[in-house]
Amino acid sequence: MDNSWATFGRDLHLDLSGPGGLRAALMRALREAVRTGRLAPGSRLPSSRSLAADLGIARNTVADAYAELVAEGWLSARQGSGTRVAWGYRPDGAGGASPGARATPPARRRPPEQDRRPDQPRFDLTPGTPDVSSFPRTAWLAAARRALTAAPHEVFGYGTAAGRPELRTVLADYLARARGVRADPDRIVVCAGFMQGLGLVSRALRGEGGGPPNWPGEVRGRTAQASRNPRRPGEDWRQGDGQLAVESYGLGFHRTVITRVGLRTVPLSVDERGARTSELSALDDVRAALLTPAHQFPMGVPLHPDRRAEAVNWARATGGYILEDDYDGEFRYDRQPVGALQGLDPDHVVYMGTASKSLAPGLRLAWMVLPDRLVDKVLAVKSTGEWQSGSLDQLTLAEFLSSGAYDRHLRTMRLRYRRRRDQLVAALTEHAPHVRISGIAAGLHAILELPPGAEQSTLQTAHRQGLAVHGLTFYTDPAATAVSRDALVVGYGTPPDHSFANVLDALVSALPAP
Amino acid sequence: MDNSWATFGRDLHLDLSGPGGLRAALMRALREAVRTGRLAPGSRLPSSRSLAADLGIARNTVADAYAELVAEGWLSARQGSGTRVAWGYRPDGAGGASPGARATPPARRRPPEQDRRPDQPRFDLTPGTPDVSSFPRTAWLAAARRALTAAPHEVFGYGTAAGRPELRTVLADYLARARGVRADPDRIVVCAGFMQGLGLVSRALRGEGGGPPNWPGEVRGRTAQASRNPRRPGEDWRQGDGQLAVESYGLGFHRTVITRVGLRTVPLSVDERGARTSELSALDDVRAALLTPAHQFPMGVPLHPDRRAEAVNWARATGGYILEDDYDGEFRYDRQPVGALQGLDPDHVVYMGTASKSLAPGLRLAWMVLPDRLVDKVLAVKSTGEWQSGSLDQLTLAEFLSSGAYDRHLRTMRLRYRRRRDQLVAALTEHAPHVRISGIAAGLHAILELPPGAEQSTLQTAHRQGLAVHGLTFYTDPAATAVSRDALVVGYGTPPDHSFANVLDALVSALPAP
Repeated sequence: MDNSWATFGRDLHLDLSGPGGLRAALMRALREAVRTGRLAPGSRLPSSRSLAADLGIARNTVADAYAELVAEGWLSARQGSGTRVAWGYRPDGAGGASPGARATPPARRRPPEQDRRPDQPRFDLTPGTPDVSSFPRTAWLAAARRALTAAPHEVFGYGTAAGRPELRTVLADYLARARGVRADPDRIVVCAGFMQGLGLVSRALRGEGGGPPNWPGEVRGRTAQASRNPRRPGEDWRQGDGQLAVESYGLGFHRTVITRVGLRTVPLSVDERGARTSELSALDDVRAALLTPAHQFPMGVPLHPDRRAEAVNWARATGGYILEDDYDGEFRYDRQPVGALQGLDPDHVVYMGTASKSLAPGLRLAWMVLPDRLVDKVLAVKSTGEWQSGSLDQLTLAEFLSSGAYDRHLRTMRLRYRRRRDQLVAALTEHAPHVRISGIAAGLHAILELPPGAEQSTLQTAHRQGLAVHGLTFYTDPAATAVSRDALVVGYGTPPDHSFANVLDALVSALPAP
Repeated sequence: MDNSWATFGRDLHLDLSGPGGLRAALMRALREAVRTGRLAPGSRLPSSRSLAADLGIARNTVADAYAELVAEGWLSARQGSGTRVAWGYRPDGAGGASPGARATPPARRRPPEQDRRPDQPRFDLTPGTPDVSSFPRTAWLAAARRALTAAPHEVFGYGTAAGRPELRTVLADYLARARGVRADPDRIVVCAGFMQGLGLVSRALRGEGGGPPNWPGEVRGRTAQASRNPRRPGEDWRQGDGQLAVESYGLGFHRTVITRVGLRTVPLSVDERGARTSELSALDDVRAALLTPAHQFPMGVPLHPDRRAEAVNWARATGGYILEDDYDGEFRYDRQPVGALQGLDPDHVVYMGTASKSLAPGLRLAWMVLPDRLVDKVLAVKSTGEWQSGSLDQLTLAEFLSSGAYDRHLRTMRLRYRRRRDQLVAALTEHAPHVRISGIAAGLHAILELPPGAEQSTLQTAHRQGLAVHGLTFYTDPAATAVSRDALVVGYGTPPDHSFANVLDALVSALPAP
């Protein structure tokens, strides 16, 4: 079997250069492969013997690296099953995504407590998933019944890339009301999760959707600032190359989606006012910037109003786009939600929302509100692949929204998550007052700042206790110049209600002493 | 607006060479663009003036070509809306797919008769869609309720690329019983339609899924016949290039899926015994053959037993694969269904089934049973894109299958489609005895053979009467050497029951006189 791994290192492009010796370099390379999803959760690694042979290094070096990564929770080792990528490290999060690994054998129905793989954590504080035990089954079923009963026959036939008109109509109303989005149904495209949407827009930006080489908006929108740039953006963009700016803290898997279509990513620094949008105008050949304006992921700050304006101005001046990842915009606790950036300029902002945080990732339903001149391009790209989400779920969500069940569910969950956040803050205040917590005004996760150098050891302690939690390092773009701070990213939305107190105990006891 | 079309001809690679003058060449090129999906249904064509300028030909030539294609039903022209690709020409069919065009504005609920676009046909005999008015709404809802009530919480979270274990377990049983497939749940991958599956397998064959350069099966499986070939298949395959054999009659859109990932297609002739599998061994660098063994699409013949053996032997000898598109294997009327080819050799046949014909395309649910050595590769490829179908529909289908509702629905529909087929045969026997009908032992469509040269004029008559129907030309691979016969491909599954008698009247009156 090990033969099949003979080229593992080469296939994964494990780069063993850099400081700190071979073991450190191998650990860095493996972490990066997990972080970017090149190594999927659950996938088996080669034996230390065969990887050592493949890389031409000592077997002990590989074995030691494996052991440390197991201790840190990146990998898991089981008797007879070899070393695998740990399940806790699914690259979920902001927009949300879990690249599937080979599934476990079909499971019988078991009580949830017994329903974990031997290498699964007992407690899960990784962000990206809401409390799925709170999915509103009864209300969803009622909406499905009403939707299916009233549906025209054509619903069961082939549909369109844009999605069901019923859903797009209701979404336009909802997004205007709840998020300040300037939407009309013809500019909404339903997609199967944020990841699919990001891939589609990236491909459209790369020119795959066809159309004229000079996009009208780019030429029309050019100003004095843009014309300092000798390149004619429209023409360059047709060549396929180009950059997409991403926040320096974010999800490696999102960067992978972008680079896979042939665009490069370039990091934008993040500070206490959110992404430093001033850096945009100094960057070359940037077509778009992927931002989390309502609630930076994972740092948890909203984008400052000045920077919101600055981002939109940059897009107008250069003919670029802001991709607004509004993954948890509905969840804000201490004041009114921050409206969508898209409201400032619907011609230069792609708004992207999802049901993965507000309802359930398992639905695979998300939506984009596109600038008019991107609609046909994105639909053209979508038509070349899996162009349509399941119609019945789309109709059910439309009914769920229009009946008010969605608002009711959000109110319930907002109270519940707020209570959890308050419990988290109280537990830290009592048991770990030296740990500063931030990013807690909104969303389903918080940042716990650790003493310098304490992140890895804290993670090791947490993982030994069966607590899945990520360090900020996991969400730091390796291309970013600033050094990542030591911190934990605590996704408090994930555990079911009944175990939340136990989860907090485990977390607190994993934190370093003052 | 027309400026945006300045490069239409270039972008579409309209090739105006070939016999018969510019008008004929332009018509050929536009038909091919529609057939392959490069021009999506509903998409707007440039004005004749601007296309003429773009191509450097006379405006009248373009206007005449448009007018004839409108008459033939490929395009539709409407006052104020310009010329568009007709909706009847969605590239559905065998595996089934309808690349979505920009959707029409949200529709209010209207009675079905009023629910068509002005350019939509009154009657639809294009194949690829079952009678969606017969979708078993009540039984489906009951299954959804049972499934959702019993579901473990994790169903609502992120899932795996393989699909829900509940569904894979039930599918393995069902496929073994109903189709003679040798399946186990670990080799089943749920996907969102045949098209997604075909794309995934094509990418895996091209080497995207990683793994060792020499696939064990290929090396192990090599025989005297294969070793006449100096190439080492495993190594070549990793280069990305290669060919996939397709039946010379089939769906242009399937070929487009294959070529888009970087493989070439090469046609296999089709005769009254199905695909001529003997041609496989004479072809170079062929990695797989896409076949419709149970019911050739669209010719309607089953693959002869000798050729089934021949196909499998070729795959064994060369380390290649048969991709078995079992799009309508459940519908056979006059004798027992032909078992799946996959039963002969699960290590060399990829079985691909779908709910699009048996239930509804709008569900976007299909499945593959993969040879063991393709499973990880296909899952790795799937994990890089939209890796997961909606969990609730997957659970509902599992419940629908295991409760027996699927079998009951199939029995009902089999009787209904068989009655339609008998009505079709009776109508032709009475009113058009000179038109030979074939391919009627199974499936949801039939071939009506026309006098030589009569296909285009028959289509024109049909389309003038508001009857959407395709000629065999539409399904003929332009790369095939044999000349397409004149015939209609009549999808009798599509219309709702209540209008079927009227549809038959319209069809019969469109047929040429004896």
